[in-house]
Amino acid sequence: MTRPITLFTGQWADLPLEEVAALASGWGYDGLEIACWGDHLDPWRWDDDQYVADKLALLARYNLKVYAISNHLKGQAVCDDPIDQRHWEILSDTVWGDGDPEGVRRRAAEEMKNTARLAAKLGVDTVIGFTGSSIWKYVAMFPPVSQDAIDAGYQDFADRWNPILDVFDEVGVRFAHEVHPSEIAYDYWTTKRTLEAIGHRKAFCLNWDPSHFMWQQLDPVDFILEFADRIIHVDCKDVKLRLGNGRNGVLGSHLAWADLNRGWDFVSTGRGDVPWEASFRALNSIGYDGPISVEWEDAGMDRLLGAPEALAFVKRNAFAAPVAAFDSAFKAQ
Amino acid sequence: MTRPITLFTGQWADLPLEEVAALASGWGYDGLEIACWGDHLDPWRWDDDQYVADKLALLARYNLKVYAISNHLKGQAVCDDPIDQRHWEILSDTVWGDGDPEGVRRRAAEEMKNTARLAAKLGVDTVIGFTGSSIWKYVAMFPPVSQDAIDAGYQDFADRWNPILDVFDEVGVRFAHEVHPSEIAYDYWTTKRTLEAIGHRKAFCLNWDPSHFMWQQLDPVDFILEFADRIIHVDCKDVKLRLGNGRNGVLGSHLAWADLNRGWDFVSTGRGDVPWEASFRALNSIGYDGPISVEWEDAGMDRLLGAPEALAFVKRNAFAAPVAAFDSAFKAQ
Amino acid sequence: MTRPITLFTGQWADLPLEEVAALASGWGYDGLEIACWGDHLDPWRWDDDQYVADKLALLARYNLKVYAISNHLKGQAVCDDPIDQRHWEILSDTVWGDGDPEGVRRRAAEEMKNTARLAAKLGVDTVIGFTGSSIWKYVAMFPPVSQDAIDAGYQDFADRWNPILDVFDEVGVRFAHEVHPSEIAYDYWTTKRTLEAIGHRKAFCLNWDPSHFMWQQLDPVDFILEFADRIIHVDCKDVKLRLGNGRNGVLGSHLAWADLNRGWDFVSTGRGDVPWEASFRALNSIGYDGPISVEWEDAGMDRLLGAPEALAFVKRNAFAAPVAAFDSAFKAQ
Amino acid sequence: MTRPITLFTGQWADLPLEEVAALASGWGYDGLEIACWGDHLDPWRWDDDQYVADKLALLARYNLKVYAISNHLKGQAVCDDPIDQRHWEILSDTVWGDGDPEGVRRRAAEEMKNTARLAAKLGVDTVIGFTGSSIWKYVAMFPPVSQDAIDAGYQDFADRWNPILDVFDEVGVRFAHEVHPSEIAYDYWTTKRTLEAIGHRKAFCLNWDPSHFMWQQLDPVDFILEFADRIIHVDCKDVKLRLGNGRNGVLGSHLAWADLNRGWDFVSTGRGDVPWEASFRALNSIGYDGPISVEWEDAGMDRLLGAPEALAFVKRNAFAAPVAAFDSAFKAQ
Amino acid sequence: MTRPITLFTGQWADLPLEEVAALASGWGYDGLEIACWGDHLDPWRWDDDQYVADKLALLARYNLKVYAISNHLKGQAVCDDPIDQRHWEILSDTVWGDGDPEGVRRRAAEEMKNTARLAAKLGVDTVIGFTGSSIWKYVAMFPPVSQDAIDAGYQDFADRWNPILDVFDEVGVRFAHEVHPSEIAYDYWTTKRTLEAIGHRKAFCLNWDPSHFMWQQLDPVDFILEFADRIIHVDCKDVKLRLGNGRNGVLGSHLAWADLNRGWDFVSTGRGDVPWEASFRALNSIGYDGPISVEWEDAGMDRLLGAPEALAFVKRNAFAAPVAAFDSAFKAQ
Amino acid sequence: MTRPITLFTGQWADLPLEEVAALASGWGYDGLEIACWGDHLDPWRWDDDQYVADKLALLARYNLKVYAISNHLKGQAVCDDPIDQRHWEILSDTVWGDGDPEGVRRRAAEEMKNTARLAAKLGVDTVIGFTGSSIWKYVAMFPPVSQDAIDAGYQDFADRWNPILDVFDEVGVRFAHEVHPSEIAYDYWTTKRTLEAIGHRKAFCLNWDPSHFMWQQLDPVDFILEFADRIIHVDCKDVKLRLGNGRNGVLGSHLAWADLNRGWDFVSTGRGDVPWEASFRALNSIGYDGPISVEWEDAGMDRLLGAPEALAFVKRNAFAAPVAAFDSAFKAQ
Repeated sequence: MTRPITLFTGQWADLPLEEVAALASGWGYDGLEIACWGDHLDPWRWDDDQYVADKLALLARYNLKVYAISNHLKGQAVCDDPIDQRHWEILSDTVWGDGDPEGVRRRAAEEMKNTARLAAKLGVDTVIGFTGSSIWKYVAMFPPVSQDAIDAGYQDFADRWNPILDVFDEVGVRFAHEVHPSEIAYDYWTTKRTLEAIGHRKAFCLNWDPSHFMWQQLDPVDFILEFADRIIHVDCKDVKLRLGNGRNGVLGSHLAWADLNRGWDFVSTGRGDVPWEASFRALNSIGYDGPISVEWEDAGMDRLLGAPEALAFVKRNAFAAPVAAFDSAFKAQ
Repeated sequence: MTRPITLFTGQWADLPLEEVAALASGWGYDGLEIACWGDHLDPWRWDDDQYVADKLALLARYNLKVYAISNHLKGQAVCDDPIDQRHWEILSDTVWGDGDPEGVRRRAAEEMKNTARLAAKLGVDTVIGFTGSSIWKYVAMFPPVSQDAIDAGYQDFADRWNPILDVFDEVGVRFAHEVHPSEIAYDYWTTKRTLEAIGHRKAFCLNWDPSHFMWQQLDPVDFILEFADRIIHVDCKDVKLRLGNGRNGVLGSHLAWADLNRGWDFVSTGRGDVPWEASFRALNSIGYDGPISVEWEDAGMDRLLGAPEALAFVKRNAFAAPVAAFDSAFKAQ
Repeated sequence: MTRPITLFTGQWADLPLEEVAALASGWGYDGLEIACWGDHLDPWRWDDDQYVADKLALLARYNLKVYAISNHLKGQAVCDDPIDQRHWEILSDTVWGDGDPEGVRRRAAEEMKNTARLAAKLGVDTVIGFTGSSIWKYVAMFPPVSQDAIDAGYQDFADRWNPILDVFDEVGVRFAHEVHPSEIAYDYWTTKRTLEAIGHRKAFCLNWDPSHFMWQQLDPVDFILEFADRIIHVDCKDVKLRLGNGRNGVLGSHLAWADLNRGWDFVSTGRGDVPWEASFRALNSIGYDGPISVEWEDAGMDRLLGAPEALAFVKRNAFAAPVAAFDSAFKAQ
Repeated sequence: MTRPITLFTGQWADLPLEEVAALASGWGYDGLEIACWGDHLDPWRWDDDQYVADKLALLARYNLKVYAISNHLKGQAVCDDPIDQRHWEILSDTVWGDGDPEGVRRRAAEEMKNTARLAAKLGVDTVIGFTGSSIWKYVAMFPPVSQDAIDAGYQDFADRWNPILDVFDEVGVRFAHEVHPSEIAYDYWTTKRTLEAIGHRKAFCLNWDPSHFMWQQLDPVDFILEFADRIIHVDCKDVKLRLGNGRNGVLGSHLAWADLNRGWDFVSTGRGDVPWEASFRALNSIGYDGPISVEWEDAGMDRLLGAPEALAFVKRNAFAAPVAAFDSAFKAQ
Repeated sequence: MTRPITLFTGQWADLPLEEVAALASGWGYDGLEIACWGDHLDPWRWDDDQYVADKLALLARYNLKVYAISNHLKGQAVCDDPIDQRHWEILSDTVWGDGDPEGVRRRAAEEMKNTARLAAKLGVDTVIGFTGSSIWKYVAMFPPVSQDAIDAGYQDFADRWNPILDVFDEVGVRFAHEVHPSEIAYDYWTTKRTLEAIGHRKAFCLNWDPSHFMWQQLDPVDFILEFADRIIHVDCKDVKLRLGNGRNGVLGSHLAWADLNRGWDFVSTGRGDVPWEASFRALNSIGYDGPISVEWEDAGMDRLLGAPEALAFVKRNAFAAPVAAFDSAFKAQ
Repeated sequence: MTRPITLFTGQWADLPLEEVAALASGWGYDGLEIACWGDHLDPWRWDDDQYVADKLALLARYNLKVYAISNHLKGQAVCDDPIDQRHWEILSDTVWGDGDPEGVRRRAAEEMKNTARLAAKLGVDTVIGFTGSSIWKYVAMFPPVSQDAIDAGYQDFADRWNPILDVFDEVGVRFAHEVHPSEIAYDYWTTKRTLEAIGHRKAFCLNWDPSHFMWQQLDPVDFILEFADRIIHVDCKDVKLRLGNGRNGVLGSHLAWADLNRGWDFVSTGRGDVPWEASFRALNSIGYDGPISVEWEDAGMDRLLGAPEALAFVKRNAFAAPVAAFDSAFKAQ
């Protein structure tokens, strides 16, 4: 089981894909998890065969593979309520259009279908992304939220995503939701409930990214073991906690990244509190053989320093399981 | 310093005020922190002298005092965005009106002014409540939120509350904001920022309620010491954590109260994780001599059992500081 | 849901049952969980109607009820291997016989069948006990133990207990296994495996006793929630940890009870580390309405002191869940 | 083993002994641990038989016993260097004299001899106190302290205390040193070294007072087990830690008692972090049958409130060990 | 003090010794701790001078030394009760014979004597191994175990090992018992008791292997300091804990190695929870100058990857103590 | 922000400065923090231009810079009381003179003024050092210390240091006090009080050295953020805790360095418990751009091993902050 190590291009989309490919290849990455923003990939061009061929040729030039593509930003808009300035900043004009919330949601859903189609054209069977959520804003449970309102939120998610997943099924691609605050599934119990909402249909899977698990006090290893049959992609983003002084809180205090008064912050892979080695052993134990993708997000460290360091870190810790048992050597009979 | 112990009537507003007064008096409470909902208090009748006189007479019949009144539910609507079904359920028709969000906010602000006026009429100098917040929904910081958007949220709060606080100043009453998720100030650093936003004006103070501090990993004792000059009221609501198993998360998973898969839940005062005795010692050290108010919220215990138990608990732990130092007895000279 | 509180007579079997009944009744217990040793109950006399009537009359004289009977000591011998001096000391001559291990096991199994029959005669639907285990002795996994050997142990358990459980089914009684070291199921994962081994048949249930959970670092609350459909009885035995000094180990060091160099020791209910209140809330949440039975085992405290204290402790903490939600009082509409 | 519970009069010496006796007797204490300051006891009058008889008569009037007397303040001066203003404030003129340090030390030593003699006259075999230390001031180990300087400190202690202990031996009384910062023995390893310095002579024993153990991270239970043969008296003073916020330090920051920015503070017995029940069980296990003495020192609670509460607390937790083992009831043979 | 770093061959005995020697030499190991199983060493050939010479020649060819030899598997059988299938799998026909338990024990004892003789012939003064135990199976202390039964277990150990140790004394070799579950000494207090049982005779020493200390909550550094005079060999096997989720227990749940539901598992040296650097500093402080032997046991990592990595890890952390003190540079005089 | 990494020469002053320079240069250090003892620097020669020129030439030969000079040992004597043997050992004859305490203090103060003058001559704007303290010896607060005595200690500090700081102001150099036991400011609250005592004058700043923070349970990151405007130098000395076994205490037990029974000990940078990476990020966040100076103090590791290892460690972790935010790559607009 020699799994490829890829670089997620989402935080590099200010650079042309070619430049990112050159860097990643130079550092020794095996491939890219390509984001559907910047000039990296445009899902609306899924049926432009030349466009697809050019992208694959670009990768081939740098000896890189693609195993999964990502479209977090548009997936976010599928269920979100409200739709506001924050979405405007990250959505293309095609999706934003006149900014009418329901229209934005529908166009975002359309782009997610196209993302599945593009993945298929690229020979890729996994699309990673977010779902958005109409009830995330009720997370504090005050003003009092009725059980009906919560139930309706899960139903809204199912209603909006089932048609998208139908297209995924048609083209033989699966969606890997990243469990994350702001989304319909952001922790252990909401993931359970989300899978129920969608009838555990096969097209809806999970991207394991532990960076939001630690401050929520969730165990990323346990998550792998419990959702073994759903984890089809792995993103390595790390997080460092600065809690315990009684002043920094788990909610981040609306403070900016890199502010050390935040209770936690993202850091380059290997420099945080995620139990990476145990997690990779858990991935071995469930037989995960897909890519391990490095997602660099560290507001306190330069990405040109972090990306190659993270690659070395992952290589050192994501080793394969052995074939033979150690106590077989004790056998006399 | 013998501080009165009061019962907050907010969670008893399904009963007539007279019935709550009878119960509280029977258990031995010194007074009530009266909520402005149910039939307990109606701020719009602030200038109805008979109404006010009747309320005071009712209290007198049961040998109870009032030191503060509360209007969390309407304060919430002053800044909130969105305004939705949740608000409709807790707002009177007077405030909800046609449900147009900006209209709701303005009428809620009007009620908060009236609450100040009613307090003055009742001979009370403290109104407790929430502020609402237009940026609470951005707590997860994704989709990316610009610093401008955050700054605008604090400004919106200041713009909406300054006129309300002007009325407070006029009638010689102070507003005690309860630091709480869903509000503009919900932890240590947001409280700092909120006080800055409003220029540290004297009319804006704090109600110390530690129930949301523990799961955020905030130290309620430190909070008392740091904001000593702002704490003018104390609400005793307790919370029990059920974290650490790697499955229950700090965000509560959109689960209902009393579900043991929540990472935390409110419990009757004295049965949770709040360091009450140390907190009362801290209140002593800052010279706090206002009421200690018991706020019963425990979805797993009957309120008729919890309320008298909490009173006994508070009496046992909220003792006054002594006059003499213990080592003065060592003196030979 | 007003659950009865009973006293387990197992640690009082050096006294005649009548004397124990007099004590328990005097302290205010609602009933007894009667042990099948000493003169308390003899399963071999299950079909002696007078014997049964006399026992029930004795209880009635002291205004006590019986909801469950216990036979840990004989259950232990059903699967154990080796059978040795330790068993001889706790087994009656009837079961021990000539001491041939397989004969002892068979006679113990016979007594367990009779215990079910006796329960039925007493009008009781629950028998509490241990299973014994042929593989407990392999717990250290050295010398190396093959997976086959482990599997065989679970199969041996199923083979020996299925015929016993057939009798339980016949007479409408269920067996409540106490999860405990020395037994086939002693922790979370072994309980899962044990239930699988026996095909999850309905007659095999669980007695929740958390005293061996704490030093194993198991969460007794989680256990209640996960095995909600199997928990039919509750024993309250408490345990105090003395770990962390780097010398006292979790295995107890073959030291005697009350030796403070042990890493843990049993203590009277309410004086240890079991999270009792959270556990009782969990029992509420699964709708458990059976008896709460106090099991006194404290080598450092007199039982005449501990038993009434434990009763008071349980009463204070095992309160029922309330009917109404606290936030219903916020409703304006 | 029914051990007497006594009240230490040291922190009550601003009151006449008779008044303290009246209070203690009224609360239900069995006796007093009488301090040699205030008007409580004057060691220089040891050979005044009338004085001694009057003191005993006073106790008898209040139905109180005396098992031990204390002279911490003068013991402190025996080895201390420097001798300064702090000593002047707590020493009588007799001992202070002209204030010449060596003279003060010699007169303090003389008073300690007299304290032994007075104890004998009172029929008491235990004197509790401090030793002082010439090397305590080097605790920070900077400027660099040579091993020779440390060794000389222990030798100085031995040289000054051996002649005192000779008098203790003569009159059949033992000295119980209280392990405490400022003294020659203040933690586990310094107690070991101190006992070596004095050749483990029988007259030098220990008073177990855990109040300075917790913030030093010492285990008071382990201390009882390890120094079982030396512990001849028990003082119950409690301590509460306020550490972990990264600002409050273990050294107390030269802040006054009751300042909540101290990392720790003394509190009334039962309200702090000392593991009292486990400690009393340890005292049972070493066969300690001397007095349990309550030492009230709580700068945040009135002593008239604390003293009776502490008595009740100790009674509830310092129970005797039982005679029979719980598993003897399992015996069939 | 430049201590050799050796590789323990026990988990490589499926390979010919020559192959293991080639690998170890290639990685830079200084020597081997050779196991007495596989083709590595056969104690019954101790008086075959050519056999011994060949083994030494083999080592010399690879520039390796031998400082200690190991015979855990046969030592285990000396006291064990029961003797069963597990022993059959790891014992040679010579020792197993007809499988009669007492015969197996006696022949195992004979092999241990021969192991001492072989060590002497090889010029080695240390034999590492296990003792077995007749009372390990009583570790759960239920069914109740009498103190007599425990005492008899220690006596059985002494009776069986004293004659073996006589041979060790004769040939000038010492036995280093590895403290380990399944053995007579498996933690701190049982090690104390074991040394007493054997009268602290010089031939019985200890092999420090911390891999079973961590999950028992024992401090390996403290163990080195307390048993300084007995530690004559060091095995580096690491362990990783996966406790705290309330489901994984310290007893391992009869689960296989590498199953992440186990509460703990062995991992390659440097990847677990053992405080290696502090342990090596402790070994420095007791003047230990014997070999540091790497014992690879990691069911989740290939041994060809782990063995050289562990060597580098040990080299980086097992540095020698310096000669001069750092503060001598401050001296002006 | 590429900050220089320097080596503090204080623990190398037994070697000639030239030899230290050769070593440091060879390992790759950017400069030296030169100590004013040994032959490294003599403040009394501040106006000897040739002396100063020679020192600078020496540094230039080895391509090293000097950004700060240190005089801890003489600063210590400015306020200390008592002045004793410990000072004699570390003070030059010039300062010690006849050893009269007040004379020593005055001459030490004079040397500190000269140190400022020497710094200025060397082109350096920072002098690092200790202040000494007349009240450190009262840290245990027993015998009782009056608030007046504490206040007098801070005043004594101000009285003695203000004239020294006047000279610092004259020559444009600042003093960086190292927060440390034995000094006037040794933790968070004493640093606050110290800055108040001296009126927050600009010449009095701080040298951040976290080695004494960890065992006092102080947060070095919080310290950086809170005293951001005062931190003008950074010393990297690491510390390892050995607490938690209930025997090792936080006060060190008057035991020698490298004794593993101490509760803590200094170790080479990167091998202890200081959160270095978070600390360097905090230094970035306050815009600190001065030197990072490695202070080697490890009684268990050779300095020739530790110094280059520490340099590599610091380089790996003290990276600069990036320019761009990671989420700017998400922007579509």
